[in-house]
Amino acid sequence: MKDSKGHRVPFGIKGLDEMICGGLLEGSANLIEGAPGTGKTTIAMEFIYNGITRYNEPGCIITFEEFPQQYYRDALKFGWDLKKLESKGLLKVIFSDPETTLKEFEKVDGKFIKLVQEMGIKRIAVDSMSHFESLSLDEFHLRELECAFINSLKRENVTSVLLRENDSLMGQMSQLTSKIPFIVDSYFLLRYVEIDSAIAKAFIILKMRGSDHTKEIRRFTISSGGIEVESKFSGREGIMSGITHHTPQDAFVNVFGKK
Amino acid sequence: MKDSKGHRVPFGIKGLDEMICGGLLEGSANLIEGAPGTGKTTIAMEFIYNGITRYNEPGCIITFEEFPQQYYRDALKFGWDLKKLESKGLLKVIFSDPETTLKEFEKVDGKFIKLVQEMGIKRIAVDSMSHFESLSLDEFHLRELECAFINSLKRENVTSVLLRENDSLMGQMSQLTSKIPFIVDSYFLLRYVEIDSAIAKAFIILKMRGSDHTKEIRRFTISSGGIEVESKFSGREGIMSGITHHTPQDAFVNVFGKK
Amino acid sequence: MKDSKGHRVPFGIKGLDEMICGGLLEGSANLIEGAPGTGKTTIAMEFIYNGITRYNEPGCIITFEEFPQQYYRDALKFGWDLKKLESKGLLKVIFSDPETTLKEFEKVDGKFIKLVQEMGIKRIAVDSMSHFESLSLDEFHLRELECAFINSLKRENVTSVLLRENDSLMGQMSQLTSKIPFIVDSYFLLRYVEIDSAIAKAFIILKMRGSDHTKEIRRFTISSGGIEVESKFSGREGIMSGITHHTPQDAFVNVFGKK
Amino acid sequence: MKDSKGHRVPFGIKGLDEMICGGLLEGSANLIEGAPGTGKTTIAMEFIYNGITRYNEPGCIITFEEFPQQYYRDALKFGWDLKKLESKGLLKVIFSDPETTLKEFEKVDGKFIKLVQEMGIKRIAVDSMSHFESLSLDEFHLRELECAFINSLKRENVTSVLLRENDSLMGQMSQLTSKIPFIVDSYFLLRYVEIDSAIAKAFIILKMRGSDHTKEIRRFTISSGGIEVESKFSGREGIMSGITHHTPQDAFVNVFGKK
Amino acid sequence: MKDSKGHRVPFGIKGLDEMICGGLLEGSANLIEGAPGTGKTTIAMEFIYNGITRYNEPGCIITFEEFPQQYYRDALKFGWDLKKLESKGLLKVIFSDPETTLKEFEKVDGKFIKLVQEMGIKRIAVDSMSHFESLSLDEFHLRELECAFINSLKRENVTSVLLRENDSLMGQMSQLTSKIPFIVDSYFLLRYVEIDSAIAKAFIILKMRGSDHTKEIRRFTISSGGIEVESKFSGREGIMSGITHHTPQDAFVNVFGKK
Amino acid sequence: MKDSKGHRVPFGIKGLDEMICGGLLEGSANLIEGAPGTGKTTIAMEFIYNGITRYNEPGCIITFEEFPQQYYRDALKFGWDLKKLESKGLLKVIFSDPETTLKEFEKVDGKFIKLVQEMGIKRIAVDSMSHFESLSLDEFHLRELECAFINSLKRENVTSVLLRENDSLMGQMSQLTSKIPFIVDSYFLLRYVEIDSAIAKAFIILKMRGSDHTKEIRRFTISSGGIEVESKFSGREGIMSGITHHTPQDAFVNVFGKK
Repeated sequence: MKDSKGHRVPFGIKGLDEMICGGLLEGSANLIEGAPGTGKTTIAMEFIYNGITRYNEPGCIITFEEFPQQYYRDALKFGWDLKKLESKGLLKVIFSDPETTLKEFEKVDGKFIKLVQEMGIKRIAVDSMSHFESLSLDEFHLRELECAFINSLKRENVTSVLLRENDSLMGQMSQLTSKIPFIVDSYFLLRYVEIDSAIAKAFIILKMRGSDHTKEIRRFTISSGGIEVESKFSGREGIMSGITHHTPQDAFVNVFGKK
Repeated sequence: MKDSKGHRVPFGIKGLDEMICGGLLEGSANLIEGAPGTGKTTIAMEFIYNGITRYNEPGCIITFEEFPQQYYRDALKFGWDLKKLESKGLLKVIFSDPETTLKEFEKVDGKFIKLVQEMGIKRIAVDSMSHFESLSLDEFHLRELECAFINSLKRENVTSVLLRENDSLMGQMSQLTSKIPFIVDSYFLLRYVEIDSAIAKAFIILKMRGSDHTKEIRRFTISSGGIEVESKFSGREGIMSGITHHTPQDAFVNVFGKK
Repeated sequence: MKDSKGHRVPFGIKGLDEMICGGLLEGSANLIEGAPGTGKTTIAMEFIYNGITRYNEPGCIITFEEFPQQYYRDALKFGWDLKKLESKGLLKVIFSDPETTLKEFEKVDGKFIKLVQEMGIKRIAVDSMSHFESLSLDEFHLRELECAFINSLKRENVTSVLLRENDSLMGQMSQLTSKIPFIVDSYFLLRYVEIDSAIAKAFIILKMRGSDHTKEIRRFTISSGGIEVESKFSGREGIMSGITHHTPQDAFVNVFGKK
Repeated sequence: MKDSKGHRVPFGIKGLDEMICGGLLEGSANLIEGAPGTGKTTIAMEFIYNGITRYNEPGCIITFEEFPQQYYRDALKFGWDLKKLESKGLLKVIFSDPETTLKEFEKVDGKFIKLVQEMGIKRIAVDSMSHFESLSLDEFHLRELECAFINSLKRENVTSVLLRENDSLMGQMSQLTSKIPFIVDSYFLLRYVEIDSAIAKAFIILKMRGSDHTKEIRRFTISSGGIEVESKFSGREGIMSGITHHTPQDAFVNVFGKK
Repeated sequence: MKDSKGHRVPFGIKGLDEMICGGLLEGSANLIEGAPGTGKTTIAMEFIYNGITRYNEPGCIITFEEFPQQYYRDALKFGWDLKKLESKGLLKVIFSDPETTLKEFEKVDGKFIKLVQEMGIKRIAVDSMSHFESLSLDEFHLRELECAFINSLKRENVTSVLLRENDSLMGQMSQLTSKIPFIVDSYFLLRYVEIDSAIAKAFIILKMRGSDHTKEIRRFTISSGGIEVESKFSGREGIMSGITHHTPQDAFVNVFGKK
Repeated sequence: MKDSKGHRVPFGIKGLDEMICGGLLEGSANLIEGAPGTGKTTIAMEFIYNGITRYNEPGCIITFEEFPQQYYRDALKFGWDLKKLESKGLLKVIFSDPETTLKEFEKVDGKFIKLVQEMGIKRIAVDSMSHFESLSLDEFHLRELECAFINSLKRENVTSVLLRENDSLMGQMSQLTSKIPFIVDSYFLLRYVEIDSAIAKAFIILKMRGSDHTKEIRRFTISSGGIEVESKFSGREGIMSGITHHTPQDAFVNVFGKK
């Protein structure tokens, strides 16, 4: 697959953009799932902040729970001044609910659609898709609503980062609990991994329509500057189960030394 | 089982056709299941595209969710120009719903049946059978509907590739969540496999009525040209659990060298 | 247990008849469970076909889903011409539903009972008992119906092979999902087993009332001539979990050689 | 615990009586659970048959499903002529249902209670307690009914062997599915165990009120003479999970020889 | 935590009292959970019997299912003559139901409260709290009832041993099935453990408010004298899963000898 | 992330404050989950007690179940005289229910809000959030209530320690059973870990918004002085599953010595 195809929308996070051949595909819908504390919101904020400040792409953050103050404060801890960007007309942070959001994105003259068009918004982050699940108890109806929302974003050609809370903390993530991974263009997982009596974080790309991407499970950390993606977990098996084991080779070499 | 029996309908994917003794059996219904991102749609598109361009068999793609534009665009990324084939009358991409599809295939003079007959369609891909599950909450009634649909395809002697979304991401796929595998002629699984801190993909053939087939679990990748099936996973145990381990032999040899 | 007791009803499959001391017991009800593609229907067909052609025992196949044409065609692929046997009055293939089947076997002058008596049918295959589950959602009532059906077969002293679909694909088959195994005389399991990055098939006998039988878990394959039962899985542990491991001995010997 | 206390009621099965210090305690209620084919009915029959023929204790078998003919025939295969014993007035085989059974045992002048008293019955086998579960969907009410039945047996001072079907085939039997084990005096488990690509059977005693018993998990087989209890499983771990592993010691010794 | 704080209420079981720094805390509520046959009732009886005979503390046993005769008989097998103690006014064995018990303990002038006060009862055993679960299907309401009962015991400053049936037989006890462990002062678990093809018993202290206690998982047995607590399980891993493995060290040492 | 940002609110527990760069963030909501007996209440009490006595920050404990007397008594066992602090106006222990608590915290002139303002309360402990689950069976509604409560605490800029009962005793904690971890600023887990036939306790920090923190899984104990956090678990794998294994290295070194 030629990676040059399609305009790339980078996160502005070095290791991460490398993993996805330079960036997300323009106009694509990209799901990021993770347990609490894995860094979903941080990645989404960084995607929007860097989009505005480095790539000149106005952005929008839609949040369904967090208070505005909290959101601005959390971003500021990474040095990202969202209020300033809003005052310059480059960012819009929307505190809404799934029902309103869906309606105002689906209607031709919906408020949110107009906002996107008037501000020239290129990037949208949704925090989080999990709240859509309150809209319908019927899984097929819910899928239609989620699908309609994602399509309304695509119609505007905005590149979206959609967060979703994952209830699987550490064990085998055997069953999907949402149909969104089947709908979106990309599916990224953030997972906890136990290594040497410590909790590391893994970044996994399971799906990226129309683009090549690394197949490696990469370690990442969150520091004062935001996300930092590192190398893969070497000498380890069982990473996807959350509880790794040394490969036998690794174990032998550690004890007996290399041949 | 003599593999020469029955006309073969090849995917046009070298490694894959080898696995199934040259191709699918004419008029058979073939289920391909996989988690999001495992390449179900790509295999189905390639089956239809190659059918038309290499084997002179007009084809039809039925999709229940994806927008037409998206579908054409995704195919184009592999160099498959579906619109051109449609304009030549060799392909029909149908955007419908399970209810209509079932009705228009079951009735003697149904629209879709007529289309198949008029265009001389030999291959059909359905993306995906998962949407049929919205038709009935009763598992026995659902099975009847699925069975009726599959039989209507067989009556026309078209060879079908039926996709189905599998919610099992990586752990042991212990329980079937559909009865379709019991109804169809072939049952293929696409699974994620963790190998050396990376995510590989495995192609498994569990069932192929009336034909021999490889029993090997083969690695495959998706590149810019489509699906590429490779060799089996050597020196590994536990592939079906998604999280492989080195065989002890492999581990010893890696550390101590071969005898 | 003296194995000579009771008239034996052989499958006519060499390795398999050996496993069960020559054959099934006359008049017994024998359950064969397996996941899709494990060969249930093939074994049942072979039991009936060989019964007629080698042992001079007229037979009957009751199927609840498959189209007649498909059934005849699938059998022909193994060289078994069911239509010919039917035309000779030695076989009856019945396409029915569980309700009718139950009724016509239970009534003293039921159609199916009469058929058995008039044709002198000695062997019956039912494909599959899974469809009985649509008759009642109450597990105790269902059990009564299943029990009544099985008893009606026994009253006629026919030897039956009852197939049942098993939803457990590869992981540990921890829980029974039917009470039939408690009702029948024999309980045979067909299971997938991962060996060296390939999918093998295992034949397991868990129960055989009134007869000795091998306790070994045997490998089997399906070839153009039908079922072939082979030796047990040597040097392997965890076969019943579907994902085997080399025994430590086997692993050591493979690497270091035998003492 | 002094094992001499209380009159012992032996099975007449050598290895088994040794495991329980000579026999069951007089007047006790003893539960035997197992998956299909593990030998529950055989043990119960042997308990009753030996009771009459070796220990001069008239017995009674209550069965809720099996046809009388089948029962007599199955017993005869082991050389146990139940009909003959019945004709001598030493045995009563009752084909009934849980409701009637409960009623006729609970009432002071119930038919079954009278039978016990008139025939001087000392041993009762119930095949199986699983059928009581159809009496109530409320687990607390069911427990009361089961408790009432067991107490009615105890009031007559008969020693009972109560069978119960266990749906756990081979994996870890993690959860009890009945409260009977808490009510009865003894709780015996029959389990399948995979050993060297074969299916062995294990006899486990988890509870025996008022008596010492072996803690060993013993292998047993069913042969033409009935049950034969053998030694424990040496050199194996994980027996209760159904899928054993060689202990590391055992593995090393097998390969490298003993020190 | 100074272990001298608070009056100690010993079981009179040497190894066990050592584990809990001399005894239970006066006025505390202590939960003992275990599968059938693990010895719950024996421990409770011994606690009450020793309390009366060795520590001069009158006691009370409340039982919801067992017949009085059975209870007296079971105790006698250990040499504990409960009837004699009752006739001396030092013990009261109450055969009741949860509803009555709750009522007569909660009311200021309840019958059971009066009994406690008049007899000067210092120790109560409840066999078993599991029966409370029939009082309400609502988990929050049930918790309130259980809490009210436990508080009524505490108000009288009696030290209680509350038994609870645990349905987890041998596998990982992953989920609590009751909220009582959160309410009580101490939480003790009795578990089966497979060791060398035998079933051992483990005593585990998970919680003991206001007191130090051993963290060791200790082996215990039931003999003719009652409970005997032994040392921990050395050279074993996975005890809490019920199926232990030799530690690698232990395995190496067993085969190759110590360094 | 610069750890100096934001005022720190220390626990006054040396090892623990080190793990979180000096203390909790002012005004943050911090969830501590654990099974019964893991020390949740002790940590919360110590947080409040040390806040008052060492850091001059008045505190409040809200408890939904425990009797006042019991609470004071349990604290006194650690030498923490809560009554004395209350009499000095530095502490308020509130015995309430979730409904009242929510109402009196949410209203502008709510009783509890007034108390916080009048006493100048800086720290609040809630024992436990589990009781909120009785307020609504609808998970989305419950989340709103929990969110509203947490926000009302944040509005007052109090730093809160919110306890939650975790039903996962020892096995893999695969699924979250609450949405609170997604709402709060910090998520701490207390878990049991089996080590060498003993039960140890582990402290894990999964989330801490706006602050760095150790990723290590640390051992901790509860002694007469309260919580003591120790070093990580060295030479062990599988800590998060509750049942650890020696790493192969550790095992080899223990037996054969270091290189």
